[in-house]
Parts: sequence; C-alpha cells; structure tokens
Amino acid sequence: MKDNNHNALNFHVSVDCVIFGFDFGKLNVLLLERNFNYGGIEYNDLKLPGDLVRKDEDLDTAASRVLKELTGLENIYLKQFAAIGTPNRLNRIDRDMEWLRSIGHPEEVVVTVAYYSLINIDQDKIDKFGLQANTRWHPVADITELAFDHMEILSDALTTLRTELRSNPIGFELLPAKFTLSQLQKLYEVILGTNLDKRNFRKKVSNMPYVVPINEKEKGVSHKPARYFIFSKKVYEKTRKNSFDFSV
Amino acid sequence: MKDNNHNALNFHVSVDCVIFGFDFGKLNVLLLERNFNYGGIEYNDLKLPGDLVRKDEDLDTAASRVLKELTGLENIYLKQFAAIGTPNRLNRIDRDMEWLRSIGHPEEVVVTVAYYSLINIDQDKIDKFGLQANTRWHPVADITELAFDHMEILSDALTTLRTELRSNPIGFELLPAKFTLSQLQKLYEVILGTNLDKRNFRKKVSNMPYVVPINEKEKGVSHKPARYFIFSKKVYEKTRKNSFDFSV
Repeated sequence: MKDNNHNALNFHVSVDCVIFGFDFGKLNVLLLERNFNYGGIEYNDLKLPGDLVRKDEDLDTAASRVLKELTGLENIYLKQFAAIGTPNRLNRIDRDMEWLRSIGHPEEVVVTVAYYSLINIDQDKIDKFGLQANTRWHPVADITELAFDHMEILSDALTTLRTELRSNPIGFELLPAKFTLSQLQKLYEVILGTNLDKRNFRKKVSNMPYVVPINEKEKGVSHKPARYFIFSKKVYEKTRKNSFDFSV
Repeated sequence: MKDNNHNALNFHVSVDCVIFGFDFGKLNVLLLERNFNYGGIEYNDLKLPGDLVRKDEDLDTAASRVLKELTGLENIYLKQFAAIGTPNRLNRIDRDMEWLRSIGHPEEVVVTVAYYSLINIDQDKIDKFGLQANTRWHPVADITELAFDHMEILSDALTTLRTELRSNPIGFELLPAKFTLSQLQKLYEVILGTNLDKRNFRKKVSNMPYVVPINEKEKGVSHKPARYFIFSKKVYEKTRKNSFDFSV
C-alpha cells in the first residue's frame, strides 16, 4: 500500500467462463458468436461468455449470473482458476477494440477473472438447456482462434481441468452411479485427449480402493456383460487422509 | 458483455502476497506490521504485504514488485491462487477503513489477486534478506488475526500449499540436493502441520521411483549414518506421463 497514485488507478473487472461439456464422444466448450462488421468485412468469430462485474457483486456471483443469462443453467459449480491483467490483452487486434466500442464497453484495462466448469451434456440432457441464439457448444479440438486472449484462457482452463482430473475425483460426477470400467476409461480418454492402454488402466484402477466393484453386470448387451463399479466417496476420503503421495 | 452501466463500474485492483518461509523447525509467513492510532488506541496489528496494481502493470509484475520492495527478494516464484472481490472485504471493522483513509487509499471496492510462495529461510540464508523495518517472519501456527480478510487469504494459501505439496514435487526445492529420508519426512510434517508415521512414510517413499537412493551416507554423525537420496526430475517426469492416478 505504498503507491501514491491511487486516483490514477481505474480498472474494470470482468469474469470469463470456460464451460466444458462432456458428452462421452468428445469434450466441448460453450462459446458465444460475435457478428459484426469491421472495415467492410463481416466477422462471425467466437469468444468465451463473460461480462463486467457489477458494483456490489461478488466475483463468483458475477460468473454464475453470466452462465445463467446465456444458458439458463443454475447451480453449476464454477471454479476460479486465474486472474489475468496483461495490459494489452484486449487490444491486440483492431477489430476487437472496434467491437468493444460498438457495444459501449470501456476501453480501459480490464482485469478478468477466469472460471471453468465441467458438465455433462449427454444427449438426454443437452436439449434441456435454454441456450441463447448466439451461444453454442463447439468441440474443443476444433477451436483454433478466439477473440482477445480467450484462446490462452481456454488453453489454461484445459490444463487446469486435466490436472484436476488427475488429482481429484471430479470425473465420477459425469458418470452414472453405476459404471463400467470401459466407461471410466472413455471419460479419461476424452478429457485428457489421449488413448490409454486398457491393461495399464485396469491395473491402476485396481489400486484405487474407492472404485468398488458391485455384484451386478450389464444386461441386454450383445458383448460379454461387463461388471458395474461405483465410486465410494467414503472410502476415497478415508484413504486420502494423511496421504502425501504427489505422483499424480 | 451485456451490462449497460459500464461508466458506473470502477474497481481498484490490488495484489496480496503470502510468502511462506520454511526453516525446518516450522512454517513461517512474512507479515507487515501496521502501527496506527484509532479512537485513542494504539494498534500494532499485522497484514499481508500487498499494493494496488499500477496502470500498465501486469498482475504478476505487481506481485514481484511488492515482494522486492519489502524484502529485497527477486526472482522468487510467486503463484497466483485466488482473486477475491467480496464487496465488503475491506470495511468489516472500522479501524481498517480508518487506516485506509490515513494512507490515502481509495475506499471503493478493491478486487485483490492473491499470490503465494514458499522459500527456504534456513538460518544461513535468512540474514541475507533485506527486510523492511516493519516486515517480519511469523510462525504460521501463532497467527490468529490479521487485518481485513487477510486471515482468510492466509488460510486459503495454506490449503493451496498443502494440496500442491501432495500433488507436485515442490518440496524438493527446499531440501539440499542430497537429503536423508528423515529430512524429507520433517519437511512434510512441518508444511502439513502433522506428524507422520515413520514406517508408513518410508513405505510410500519406496513407491516413488523418482526418490533415488545414492551410494553415500551421512558422515560425522553420532547416530547410525543415514543414506542420502536425490530427487530425479527426469524419472519424475517420465513416470507421471500418461498417469491418471488421482489418489493424492
């Protein structure tokens, strides 16, 4: 608190949300389409959902508000993962600045606080979302360019998500209560963006006391019915206590 | 970006630094003493080092600047772990607001971005720091109250540090290149704030291929000389690749 130029300081603070949607086939991300004309050219490019934080609004509240306005989704767990205040982050390319002016956005530095979330958008659930017209799911693997520094934010979010998946039992929230080991492996493969060796995978799972086999198998399948497993939160919390193994 | 009250928005952004100092005996934190009079009472309380972010200054740069000004320390790795913008975070108690006014600090909402760092302050290194007169190391276990919401920020930083210690090889940076298993255990005990069972600890270490015994033992000690180990970053990076075990 040594700075004497307090009155010269004037930041705008925003939130940006990286909402990952998992559908068993691929990992998707929720993006907003911008349609605008700049220099005689029509642009239809993509950005992350976000908004400026309002006065007397908590950061987490602002992120939840943005998500609700765009998707109708409520009570989604949003995890803050970064604050970004690089001075030139909004004006790297001219058309981004032009777009900001066109919507009456301030041109001063905007510090943004980034959130991510991972939700299940399996076919039976996806139609229940009330997505705004310009908001859609896109496969993460197809995204090569976004407005502002949003490509970097998306990339950081993906790294964070993958680290979380390796160190916390977040994956189980995307699975049915009873799941097969093939489903569990598919989940890891889709989110990590890689293929895993089936034998190694099963060996590792056998070392997880909280992935518990139950006395029930698949029914009505043409292949050999696979055994169902459940995730035991109780066993997980018991076994991780006092653990210090950092070899994720 | 749907908000139409852009002109009404006016945030100040600060950084706050939680610098943990590890000295093998205990875990310490670097705090700044505030000396001021409010309502006829002299207050000498403590706060985290921090400052408002300057225009055209990156958040990381601001955190490094604060640390350098207070301690003379440079090139210390600071890790961002949270942004906090709770509307009433600075004015929960009257004397905090009074203090802000006395130093010419704005009274508007300040969104703060919190950083933490863990450094070795073993006796041979601690004297080299150029700490400012009002800046000192305090044992984390002794801190029960801090200004503003800094106690919560400290608590969050400690949780983050402990999670990191369990999931990443950050601890080895605080040890000598050659270390004994007793030293490694002590490090975990000090940072996690708990006692670990020696036999369990050694069993777990034996499952870490990157903690490699070398053909060398302690010398000139009165007890049975212990074997030295090294941390192999190469083995660590090789073994964690494609791993998905989240049981930290």
